[in-house]
Amino acid sequence: MRYARIEAGGRPAHAEIADGIAHVLTGDPIRGAVKRTGDRLPLENLTFLPPVIPGVFYAVGFNYRSHVEHYGKKAPERPEVGYRANNALTGHRAPIIRPADVTGRFEAEGEVVAVIGRVLRNATRSEAQESIFGWTIGNDVSAREWQHADRTFWRSKNSDTFKPMGPWIETGADPMTQTTTVRVDGGVRARFPTGDMIFDPYDYIVETSKYITLHPGDVLWMGADSTVQLEPGSTVDIEISGIGTLSNPVLAERHP
Amino acid sequence: MRYARIEAGGRPAHAEIADGIAHVLTGDPIRGAVKRTGDRLPLENLTFLPPVIPGVFYAVGFNYRSHVEHYGKKAPERPEVGYRANNALTGHRAPIIRPADVTGRFEAEGEVVAVIGRVLRNATRSEAQESIFGWTIGNDVSAREWQHADRTFWRSKNSDTFKPMGPWIETGADPMTQTTTVRVDGGVRARFPTGDMIFDPYDYIVETSKYITLHPGDVLWMGADSTVQLEPGSTVDIEISGIGTLSNPVLAERHP
Repeated sequence: MRYARIEAGGRPAHAEIADGIAHVLTGDPIRGAVKRTGDRLPLENLTFLPPVIPGVFYAVGFNYRSHVEHYGKKAPERPEVGYRANNALTGHRAPIIRPADVTGRFEAEGEVVAVIGRVLRNATRSEAQESIFGWTIGNDVSAREWQHADRTFWRSKNSDTFKPMGPWIETGADPMTQTTTVRVDGGVRARFPTGDMIFDPYDYIVETSKYITLHPGDVLWMGADSTVQLEPGSTVDIEISGIGTLSNPVLAERHP
Repeated sequence: MRYARIEAGGRPAHAEIADGIAHVLTGDPIRGAVKRTGDRLPLENLTFLPPVIPGVFYAVGFNYRSHVEHYGKKAPERPEVGYRANNALTGHRAPIIRPADVTGRFEAEGEVVAVIGRVLRNATRSEAQESIFGWTIGNDVSAREWQHADRTFWRSKNSDTFKPMGPWIETGADPMTQTTTVRVDGGVRARFPTGDMIFDPYDYIVETSKYITLHPGDVLWMGADSTVQLEPGSTVDIEISGIGTLSNPVLAERHP
């Protein structure tokens, strides 16, 4: 099943995506039973919202060997989560805005995202596997000069629109057997096996849940193998086979 | 006015605290108009919840000169926010649980917390001042060996129960003229002028909002001057004059 959040009649709503149609739902599929309201919307001009607004937004820093080597870092020895911020979330098709004062590399990273479906503490590996509601796609946009110059990732990774997520949550895929492809204006810029991780999502959930309660709707972004430069005027697509394609145009902010 | 979140009839509810009584409210005072339902609860055995669950949980690392010097760090040159995680929040009177495998210093930091009341982007200083809904108190509990050993603050600062917040939001105080006092079992362990900050809350809001939209209910923890060691079996109180006292017992986790 594919669950999206969309704008329907000017308000946010959950929807099931099937046969190229958004079927509006009565509630939130992550938090309870839902039914189709009968309202059906074509996908063409639909406004997609981030498919979930997490209570906690977990993200993994270095989780693919070639990405670690690219930055001359040591591979992590344990699965330790970091964090991103909800203000930065935006939906499929919404613009990524490059702030007026960004200089240097401005990059996309295509990531598979685990969406948690249960309350979880001290999870075993099989409980971690069963806790997954589904999978979506994230683009961990980063302004590298800020990332290196600042004390925290506040604006380098958490400026408004820097975290596109979507287009929907796919409940039936196994991300470990998929392929991630990053395209700019249709041209392939990166392609890697999604499952080629140093630690997989269940490793992270088991370790995190030793100290931390995970809740339905929490998300865990799993890191990327490659980074891809973004220029205003282009469109970046992150495709993960079996899940979908997250597509966002890149715009330059006008000076405020 | 003082606004708390409490348990009323087994469910979370907002309440106005006046004359030693919790007056249950119809809605969320941060997000709209509220009325008293007529239900009144004495404070003695009340269960206090964190007074707000933020969309984004901002926190300031080094913001008092003596704290910076204590750690041999350079004072920050710009007001750059960091983040904490909602799973770690707990209310007034709820226990802080020290995980079974924590070794080394386990410390409290008493912090004043700004609660945002408006949508805010590219704020001027006076817009930042007007954006404050009110002020509460946070205890930024930290396990120092984990803080130094780990790649991120995931478990050192974000383990469950490590972020007591409350007891309520005071809408009428000026935190810059108050005094923060930290007591363990009634004995004063730290006392400092709350307003003795390197950058004040409005500096942080102005800078953050250049890139980031702040939303009603977001919180900004303002850092502490001093750290205080915590031992299981004791009770830690953070008092900020004009706001209130956040009190939490410390317990040792039994091995899972």
